[in-house]
Amino acid sequence: MRDAYTVELDAIFEDLAGISRQVRTAVKDATQALLTGDSSIAERVISEDAQIDSAREKVEENAFSLLSLQQPVAGDLRTVVAALRMVAELERMGDLSVHVAKIARLRVPDIAIPAEVRPTVERMATVAEDMVARVTDVIAGRDVEAAIALGRDDEEMDQLRRRSFTELLSDDWSHGVEAAVDIALLGRYYERIADHAVSVANRVVFVVTGHNPAPAA
Amino acid sequence: MRDAYTVELDAIFEDLAGISRQVRTAVKDATQALLTGDSSIAERVISEDAQIDSAREKVEENAFSLLSLQQPVAGDLRTVVAALRMVAELERMGDLSVHVAKIARLRVPDIAIPAEVRPTVERMATVAEDMVARVTDVIAGRDVEAAIALGRDDEEMDQLRRRSFTELLSDDWSHGVEAAVDIALLGRYYERIADHAVSVANRVVFVVTGHNPAPAA
Repeated sequence: MRDAYTVELDAIFEDLAGISRQVRTAVKDATQALLTGDSSIAERVISEDAQIDSAREKVEENAFSLLSLQQPVAGDLRTVVAALRMVAELERMGDLSVHVAKIARLRVPDIAIPAEVRPTVERMATVAEDMVARVTDVIAGRDVEAAIALGRDDEEMDQLRRRSFTELLSDDWSHGVEAAVDIALLGRYYERIADHAVSVANRVVFVVTGHNPAPAA
Repeated sequence: MRDAYTVELDAIFEDLAGISRQVRTAVKDATQALLTGDSSIAERVISEDAQIDSAREKVEENAFSLLSLQQPVAGDLRTVVAALRMVAELERMGDLSVHVAKIARLRVPDIAIPAEVRPTVERMATVAEDMVARVTDVIAGRDVEAAIALGRDDEEMDQLRRRSFTELLSDDWSHGVEAAVDIALLGRYYERIADHAVSVANRVVFVVTGHNPAPAA
């Protein structure tokens, strides 16, 4: 009984790691579409999101089957419910990548990001993608230390978001309202991807240790 | 055994309805702060969010206790997991109200919304608040018809969002980048509140009928 539970739970966590790899590709590709104005890459991110959605459904079915057949209690029960929450957050990160890709597509053949704010937006995208890459390792290795470190690095995203506002609200801003609105929304999407990555990492800490991580100082 | 399950499940749904009432107040007050530039109302929305967070924790503990002690299977299991998801979404709607209140607070003593776009933003806020009010009734009455109707009305929010972009990207826009960025983000927050309301309503349909509602045409 216990062994079947462990085997099935491991399979669910492997699937979660797989989905987070798909999300990383989505974030990376959406950013490339954004920075190059390449509509075919944007279209690919948008159409491939359906694969993340169906991978989510598969994890949900497996988790429900595990709950029904193995009837886990206490910590085991909380682990399976945590997996259900993680898969919902990973799917949402895929949706947010689609939002980035849609802004890219809307501006083709132009590029939504003026050169002077490109470093800030590019860094936001890199931080978000890096957090998704690290959350894959956190899930695959149930790595508590890496999970806690990830929570700490969320601060850089907040700083980048503030910097982007400073740039687009400065008197020197010459790119008009449309570009400013695009950048504000893009900042929101990348920030939410990072938030979800931290949340998924925190759930791994909970699954392994039975406790939520202490809030970042 | 079955009776204890039903009683505890009813208590969870009552708590969910209670949280959605708190969320409605948050949406309503955040909007008032936004439209009047009243910082004390904004502060209240921000500080009272902790009550929604702790109400969420209580529902989660009760749901886990129900899962552990009653070991529901099949439809009953899915109902309890649906309740866990609903409470997470309701809490998120509270967070989004806090985001609205924070934009209001940032602009005090000014009002973030220029008069010419006020009708659009006010209507977005009304639609969002109305959807939260209706989702309370959907939860309290497990009302499938009202839930399905709510999903259909989401379309108005999309139209309002598009209208707000048309307004702030028009050649006549004279309020600069800051107001435009505020409105774009506010539109996003109200839209997400509406999305979550639809999602919660869909979960009620699933709980009552065992099926997800058909996607809106």
